[in-house]
Amino acid sequence: MLEHGGRLLRAAQRYGIAPADWLDLSTGINPEAWPVPAIPARAWHRLPEDDDGLAAAAREYYGAAELLAVAGSQAAIQALPWLRARSRVGVLAPGYAEHAHAWRQAGHAVELCSGAALFEQAERYDVIVLIHPNNPGGDRYSRAALLDLHAQLAARGGWLLIDEAFMDATPEASVCADSEREGLIVLRSVGKFFGLAGARVGFVCAAPALLRALRERLGPWTLSGPSRHVVQLALADRDWQTRMRARLRSQGARLADVLGAHGLAPSGGCAFFQWRRCEDAAELHDALAQRGILTRLFDAPHSLRFGLPGDDAAYARLSAALAEVVPARSPA
Amino acid sequence: MLEHGGRLLRAAQRYGIAPADWLDLSTGINPEAWPVPAIPARAWHRLPEDDDGLAAAAREYYGAAELLAVAGSQAAIQALPWLRARSRVGVLAPGYAEHAHAWRQAGHAVELCSGAALFEQAERYDVIVLIHPNNPGGDRYSRAALLDLHAQLAARGGWLLIDEAFMDATPEASVCADSEREGLIVLRSVGKFFGLAGARVGFVCAAPALLRALRERLGPWTLSGPSRHVVQLALADRDWQTRMRARLRSQGARLADVLGAHGLAPSGGCAFFQWRRCEDAAELHDALAQRGILTRLFDAPHSLRFGLPGDDAAYARLSAALAEVVPARSPA
Repeated sequence: MLEHGGRLLRAAQRYGIAPADWLDLSTGINPEAWPVPAIPARAWHRLPEDDDGLAAAAREYYGAAELLAVAGSQAAIQALPWLRARSRVGVLAPGYAEHAHAWRQAGHAVELCSGAALFEQAERYDVIVLIHPNNPGGDRYSRAALLDLHAQLAARGGWLLIDEAFMDATPEASVCADSEREGLIVLRSVGKFFGLAGARVGFVCAAPALLRALRERLGPWTLSGPSRHVVQLALADRDWQTRMRARLRSQGARLADVLGAHGLAPSGGCAFFQWRRCEDAAELHDALAQRGILTRLFDAPHSLRFGLPGDDAAYARLSAALAEVVPARSPA
Repeated sequence: MLEHGGRLLRAAQRYGIAPADWLDLSTGINPEAWPVPAIPARAWHRLPEDDDGLAAAAREYYGAAELLAVAGSQAAIQALPWLRARSRVGVLAPGYAEHAHAWRQAGHAVELCSGAALFEQAERYDVIVLIHPNNPGGDRYSRAALLDLHAQLAARGGWLLIDEAFMDATPEASVCADSEREGLIVLRSVGKFFGLAGARVGFVCAAPALLRALRERLGPWTLSGPSRHVVQLALADRDWQTRMRARLRSQGARLADVLGAHGLAPSGGCAFFQWRRCEDAAELHDALAQRGILTRLFDAPHSLRFGLPGDDAAYARLSAALAEVVPARSPA
């Protein structure tokens, strides 16, 4: 099992700081979650049913002709590699590490590559996995480039798998609407944009035959009833979505400004987080944690990812901590 | 994908009766669910963490030394067959059909057998799968017989897999406390007893090495945060559990009495349901459905399973419908 951000309880124990006292910037989750209403008792009581309206709400929101609800995009990341015979798989790196892990676990030959290398040498792979925008680097690609890459792979039975977990603030860059093409598979998640990471709900947008095979592998009732209920409502709340897209884009820029003002101008990022490469990332991570601020540390390359502070007080706390920590490590 | 009970929306469409107007006896779920309180916002917002206290509450409730929380026992039913090389598997029949399906999907040689045949010819199998008490037959086995069967299988690296989804009303018959033995695997579910089928939470009680392998296969965050929160509270609510065990046992007996009074004395059953073999099960199922009463129909053998009516009005409605339907098919 890989290590992940979001392990607040462990950090609380290690640094002797109560969980409630942390500013948790270790995830890419929108700090301003969609407001969950009361849950009807029947959602807890009954087995969930597939024809409850969730899929229709998701098709409308994502603009995809066909999709399958899954228990978080993680469930799809783990299952998809088992639907192919042994393949040569190129995975974007650095990127969300579960992709390469899952393809290796299923026995495929995996190479970690930069985005440029994957696009230039597509002929070396049967499957290419992109994260778009990338986590943690924030890399972006044009729709035309993605569809061209897909066409090359699909022509020989290959797949282009695109993880769009952080796409919701920039839906115009999504290729969900193209996902009925054989071999184009798009993963979406409600965890980040809607701030509902605890719901464990994601969607796979793809051609019908692939979705059937995936559904057979995952089995029945993989989502909880309350999660299905809540996510169906969130996907239909257009006013909140419009307001939140604008807000996230401005918050992503604000976070980049704060980091820049303290000599940590981002190496990349998106509306949900900013990412900074630096050789002393581990020391910086530790110094911030001693001050109750949890960031996400990466080893390869040495770097830190900062999620969005939720409010002015959180921005002020981050600024104050950076003012203490950054000069100490790189005196002028 | 197999067909299951609980597909109320489909029946509503087929019979032209609104979902709210049905008496749904098609499941074995306790109609009196554990009362779910309001959910804290953080349970929706954050990624679930493994060390939130759920596992400890479950170890206490089930009396098992080691266990793993899974997204419904269905998740374990599907994953466990992939943790063994090709094996000869004896599965109790008639019984919950997902077991045999999952072992076949994973490439094992599956035989469907009566309980008596499995106990008498254990040497023919590497793995034996029991449902205890059985669904739909209600068959029961002594702890001594189960541990003896386990010992025979374990001596040659085999498994005894026992699905105890309907055990909570009779916890004295559980073998959870013995599940640290290598090769003894017990599945539990909160869906039936606590009436929380929508939560998608189950537990696998087994030796640590097997639980590690299962966890690796299932991956991180398979349960939703709200479900983890609710189930932890339900598992600790001893007063409700004590009251409900007594109530379920009396309700199971009451349902058997009602069926018997209408010439449908149960062929088997337990506290959660009663089961009746009859050649015209399909006609009876249809006649009841025309009256808005959904039961679970089995083809092999021809039989009907009746879940518990929730209150006096529901019992009266079932009695009235049986009075109309049963004489018509078997006049005295």
